[in-house]
Amino acid sequence: MVPLDTIGIIPEKLDELFPPGLSPERKARARTLFLKKLSLAAHRFYGGKMQTLPRCALPSRDWLDVWYTPGVSAVSTSIRDSVRAGLAPAEDPSFELSSRGNTVAVVSDSTRVLGDGDCTPAGGLGVMEGKAFLMKYLGGVDAVPLCVDSRMGAADPDPETLIHFVKMVQHSFGAINLEDISQPNCFRVLDELQNCDIPVWHDDAQGTAAVTLAGLLNALLLAKKRLEDVRIVLLGAGAANTTIARFILAAGADPARLIIADKEGCLHAGRDDLARDPRAYRQWELARGTNPMRVTKPVEAIQGADVLIALSAPGPGTVPPAWVASMAKDAIVFACANPVPEIWPHEAEEAGAFIVATGRGDFPNQVNNSVCFPGLLKGVLLARARRVTDAMAIRAATALAEFARSRGISPTNIMPTMDETEVFALVAADVAEAAAREGLARRPLSRAEAYARARADGEAARALYRRMQEEGFIPAPDPAMVRRALDEALRETT
Amino acid sequence: MVPLDTIGIIPEKLDELFPPGLSPERKARARTLFLKKLSLAAHRFYGGKMQTLPRCALPSRDWLDVWYTPGVSAVSTSIRDSVRAGLAPAEDPSFELSSRGNTVAVVSDSTRVLGDGDCTPAGGLGVMEGKAFLMKYLGGVDAVPLCVDSRMGAADPDPETLIHFVKMVQHSFGAINLEDISQPNCFRVLDELQNCDIPVWHDDAQGTAAVTLAGLLNALLLAKKRLEDVRIVLLGAGAANTTIARFILAAGADPARLIIADKEGCLHAGRDDLARDPRAYRQWELARGTNPMRVTKPVEAIQGADVLIALSAPGPGTVPPAWVASMAKDAIVFACANPVPEIWPHEAEEAGAFIVATGRGDFPNQVNNSVCFPGLLKGVLLARARRVTDAMAIRAATALAEFARSRGISPTNIMPTMDETEVFALVAADVAEAAAREGLARRPLSRAEAYARARADGEAARALYRRMQEEGFIPAPDPAMVRRALDEALRETT
Repeated sequence: MVPLDTIGIIPEKLDELFPPGLSPERKARARTLFLKKLSLAAHRFYGGKMQTLPRCALPSRDWLDVWYTPGVSAVSTSIRDSVRAGLAPAEDPSFELSSRGNTVAVVSDSTRVLGDGDCTPAGGLGVMEGKAFLMKYLGGVDAVPLCVDSRMGAADPDPETLIHFVKMVQHSFGAINLEDISQPNCFRVLDELQNCDIPVWHDDAQGTAAVTLAGLLNALLLAKKRLEDVRIVLLGAGAANTTIARFILAAGADPARLIIADKEGCLHAGRDDLARDPRAYRQWELARGTNPMRVTKPVEAIQGADVLIALSAPGPGTVPPAWVASMAKDAIVFACANPVPEIWPHEAEEAGAFIVATGRGDFPNQVNNSVCFPGLLKGVLLARARRVTDAMAIRAATALAEFARSRGISPTNIMPTMDETEVFALVAADVAEAAAREGLARRPLSRAEAYARARADGEAARALYRRMQEEGFIPAPDPAMVRRALDEALRETT
Repeated sequence: MVPLDTIGIIPEKLDELFPPGLSPERKARARTLFLKKLSLAAHRFYGGKMQTLPRCALPSRDWLDVWYTPGVSAVSTSIRDSVRAGLAPAEDPSFELSSRGNTVAVVSDSTRVLGDGDCTPAGGLGVMEGKAFLMKYLGGVDAVPLCVDSRMGAADPDPETLIHFVKMVQHSFGAINLEDISQPNCFRVLDELQNCDIPVWHDDAQGTAAVTLAGLLNALLLAKKRLEDVRIVLLGAGAANTTIARFILAAGADPARLIIADKEGCLHAGRDDLARDPRAYRQWELARGTNPMRVTKPVEAIQGADVLIALSAPGPGTVPPAWVASMAKDAIVFACANPVPEIWPHEAEEAGAFIVATGRGDFPNQVNNSVCFPGLLKGVLLARARRVTDAMAIRAATALAEFARSRGISPTNIMPTMDETEVFALVAADVAEAAAREGLARRPLSRAEAYARARADGEAARALYRRMQEEGFIPAPDPAMVRRALDEALRETT
C-alpha cells in the first residue's frame, strides 16, 4: 500500500492503494466503489473530460482575417457552389475545408447508459465524453458528445425524433457514432440512418460484433476448428447478438449450425411472436434463416455446440455450468454480460471450456469495443467514406485478430488490448482500404497512405496530450481527492 | 514588400506583402482576393480550424477505469438521480461533472452566412468554426459548430425545425450561440428558445446590439450629449436594429425621439403591413412604441437627428451625404453594413459627422461582435446562468464602454478591439455578476471570483495555443501557400 498522502503522487497501479490483507472479494467491491467515488470527484475537479482547441496556426493577428471574415467567405461559397453544382461526392470540399473531415458526433439519447439504464439526456454525457476521450487518445479522431432528448415531452423515447436529429446535424460531421440507445429503437435508428451520406456506426451493435468476431476467429484457430464447421449458440437476441449473428454468417459460419436464443426460447421460422412484431424485424430475419431443425430450448441447443456467445442477462448463474459441460470438446465460451458475466470464467473452465472471454478487464480475454472504434472510425474518416458496411466492420475484426496473432495468442490472450496502441492505425488502414475497394470512399487512399496518416495522427494526439500534462496545462489530480475516495470506499465496504 | 519565398516566414502584417506602388483602391481589392484565396488554401492545409482534446489528466492507464467504465457510472447515475429528484437548478450536477459547463454550441442553419446568403448547411462550417476559434482564444470557452439542415426536404427553412433541434440538444451544452439564421425565422427561433434552461444568444442580434450600444455610449460622452435627450434614427429594421432599438430604449433613450426605418419607410403605429404580418411582431412592437409624430420618410426623420445607426443595405450611397449634413451638430453616424458601409467614413465626415463607426477593421471605430461574445458567453457559463437577459447584454455593453474609457477614448477610438484581450474577463465578470443579481445564476459568483476565473481561463487557453505552435504540434503555414495566394490575387486584380 502506497502512502499516498505522504509522497503526494498517484501510484501507477490504482490497485496498489488497497491494503494487502483485503480478501479478493472485498477488494473487488471496494475497488468498484473507489473507482466510482474517485470518478465523481475527478470529473468535478476537472469540469469534465474534453475541451476544444484550434488545429490551425495564428502566426500573427492578421491571420484572423484569414480564419474569419473576410477570408472565410471563400470557404462558405466554395462549399455552397459545389453542392449547388451537384458535384460528384468525391469533390465535396466541406470535408477538407472544415474540421468535419476528422470529427465524429457521439450521439445518444441516454436511454440505456452502460448498465445503468435510462439516465436522462445529460446523464449520458460522462460516457459519451469518455468515448470522445478514447477516440482522440487512441485514434487521433476528434469527437463531440451530443446527448439528446428523444422524448420531447412524450412518455417514450421516439426513434423518429432521433433519426430526424441526426439527419439535421449530419452535415457538420464526418461520421456518427450512435451509443446507448434503448431497444427496440436502436435497430430502426441505425438502419434508417444508413441513407445519410456519412458513416453511421452503432458501437453497441457493430462495435461489439466486430470485437467478438475478432476474438472468435482467434479462439477457433487455437481450438483448431473452422468457422464453417462449428455449431454456434448465441444467448440473447439484442442489438449486439443480432449483429454478431449477421457478421459471423457473413464471415462464413453455416446458418444451419447457428441457433440464437432470446427470453422466449430459440429463434426459428415458427416464432409467430417475432413475425407479428414489426419492431423485431432483425430478430425475425435471423429466425427465418437459422435453426432449421426448430430447436426450441437453449439447453438442447447448447448440447454438443462448439461455441457459446452470451450477451444476455448479468450472472452469475445465467449460464449453468452443466450447459458448458454438455458442449463439444475444446468449447469456446464468450460470457459478455456486464457487470457480471453469465458464468464466472473459473466455473466455465471447470465445466470444460477451452477458452473463456468476458466483457471485463479484470479477467483474461476482454471483449472490449474500445479496441475497435477509434481505429475503425479513423479509417472511415481518412477514406471520407459515405457509409460503413458490414464488410468494413468485418475487415476491422480480421485486422484485430491478425494483430493479436502477429504478437502471439494463447487461450488466455486472444484479443488486442487498449495498451497496444499500434493496433488502431492497422485497423484504420484496413478499413480505409476496404471503403475504397467498395467504391464508398470520397478519398480513396492506398493502405500504406491510410496507415501512415492514422499512425501519425494517433501518435501526435498522444504526444500533445502528454505534453499538456507535463507542462501543467492539465494539472495532476489532487492526491487528497484520491485518498478521500479510497478511505470512503474502504469504510463503506463491509 | 517582404521577399516571402526567400526568408521563408510569414510577415507580422500581411499588408507588408503587397508591392508599395499599388493604388489604395487596387490594394483593397487585391487584399480581399488574397485573403479569400489564402483562406481556402489554409483551411485545406490544416483540415479546418478546430480539434478536441482531453481537459483531464491520465496519470496512468488505470485512470481509464475512472474516466470510463466502471467509474463513470457514478457520473451518469448522479445526474439522473438529481434530475429525477427534482433538485433545485442550483444543484444540477451535469454542469460540473461534464464539459457542458464550459461548452457552447454554435448553431446555424447557414441560411444567411455573413454577406454570402444561403450557403447550404455545410457551407456555414467555416464561419461557425471561426466563432469557436474566437471563443476559445479570446474567452477561454469551448465551442462546437453545429450547422444544421432546417429545410429537411422542404422548399423553405422552417423555424420550428431549428427550435426542435436546439431543444433536443440543449442538455449537452452550457449555452447556445445562434448565428447566421435568415429573417424572419431568426426572431421566432430566438424568442421561442428563451424557455430553454440555458442561455440562448443570437450574436447577430444581441451581440451586434451590445457592441453598438457600447460605442454609442462613448460617442455620446465625447459629443457631450445624454442618451435621454438625443434624437436617434435607425436605418434598417432587421434582427440587429430591432434589438439595438430595444437595448437603447432599455438603457434610457426616449421612445418619442426614436425613429426606425425599413424599406417601406419609417415605422409607426399606422403601419398596417406590420400589424398584419405575425412574423413582423418585433417590428410592430417597436412601430407602436416609437415615432409618435408618425414621420414617414427617413429623409425627414434624419433632419436634426443626433444619431444615425444604419444596418441596412451595403453602400456606398445608401445614406447620401446630404442626410448627414442635415443632422444636428456633433452628429454620430454608425454605418455598419458589410462589406461596404452605407456611407464612406470620409464622406460622412465631410458632411459634418463628428464620430463615424463602421463594421470594418480597416477604418477607425469598428463595431465588431467579436469583442463581446467571448466574454459575455464566458460570464453566463461561469454563473451557470439559466438565461441571458437584455439587462445582462446591456451590462456587457457598459463593461465594453467602461474599458475603452479606462484606457482613453477619442472620436476615432471609441471601442475596444480584439487585441485588447484584457477586456474579455471584465465583460465576463460583469455579466456573471448581473446573472447572480437577477437570480438566474445556478452558481452565483462574486464579481471578483468571476473575473479571476475568466482571466485565468482565457490566459491559459492562449498560453496553451501558443505552446502548441512553438512546439510544432501545430505547424506553421507553408510560405509557398501564402506566396501563391498573393501572386494569384495580384494577377487577377486589374
